[in-house]
Amino acid sequence: MSLDLKSLVRTIPDYPKPGILFRDITTLIEHPDGFKESVERLAEAHRGMGFTHVAGIEARGFIFGAGVAIALGVGFVPVRKRGKLPGHTIGQNYALEYGVDTIEIHADVLSNVHKVLIVDDLIATGGTAIAAVSLIRRAGAVCDHAAFVIDLPDLGGADKLRAEKVNVASLMAFEGH
Amino acid sequence: MSLDLKSLVRTIPDYPKPGILFRDITTLIEHPDGFKESVERLAEAHRGMGFTHVAGIEARGFIFGAGVAIALGVGFVPVRKRGKLPGHTIGQNYALEYGVDTIEIHADVLSNVHKVLIVDDLIATGGTAIAAVSLIRRAGAVCDHAAFVIDLPDLGGADKLRAEKVNVASLMAFEGH
Repeated sequence: MSLDLKSLVRTIPDYPKPGILFRDITTLIEHPDGFKESVERLAEAHRGMGFTHVAGIEARGFIFGAGVAIALGVGFVPVRKRGKLPGHTIGQNYALEYGVDTIEIHADVLSNVHKVLIVDDLIATGGTAIAAVSLIRRAGAVCDHAAFVIDLPDLGGADKLRAEKVNVASLMAFEGH
Repeated sequence: MSLDLKSLVRTIPDYPKPGILFRDITTLIEHPDGFKESVERLAEAHRGMGFTHVAGIEARGFIFGAGVAIALGVGFVPVRKRGKLPGHTIGQNYALEYGVDTIEIHADVLSNVHKVLIVDDLIATGGTAIAAVSLIRRAGAVCDHAAFVIDLPDLGGADKLRAEKVNVASLMAFEGH
């Protein structure tokens, strides 16, 4: 367990638009040990804490969240974009740069006997993660931990989560935008 | 390892449209042992066969595929809808009921030294899975195995894959449409 995970993340300049350095986790997950160790480290930091579910945020959060759920031996709750879940749902809006979007979970999956760890690949401005916390808490479950592979601290998302009394863990950070 | 996995799949009538019985795997993955055992069984059937990667098809295929990749100790390749991958991609069209859609992989991830197992939650008419096989073979890799949680045999997708010399494994089947 001594891989340099950060070196496995590829940076793509000017994606999705000029001036943005996109941190691409596909090169990390294509690496067998890189992927396994990422999931193991995220799980290890949250073992024995009473979680009943991991909630993974569509779509890259599914990849890491599924692995963490299995490593922790808990269920997996997909947090999906609007209209993708087949059962009755509850939804939460969040602001985009232009406009608004909605994430959803099934209405019957979580209640006040559950404790949920949010997992996503990256925390930037935190809009989706904050919405996921609100959604899970509205369902009645405890949600005070979120785990990410990558933190972009200058974008402030992790601080916003902490202000909502959410503990934030990440495997690596990239400065700048 | 004796769970009745099929009983954990929920059936939602008339979704996404009247007359369709939608097989909902969210109730399976929310169950800690159900999720873990699904992934273990899919992995077990493909151990020691020389796979270098699991390719999971967006989005539910990410959930099972990620688990199988970690269980097999191989890399994970996301097969994504058009425009979602940040690097250079190759794409493959496939027919929908009305119109056409495209799936993509990164152009530089696979070559002729690789052997890829496709994983998705469900095989129905097989359009996406056949497109994924074509895409991976065009990249130069061997792709002669695909694994699904659910097969809907009456829709013919598994047979279409077999006609393309792809071995098909599934954990359960539902008759009818």
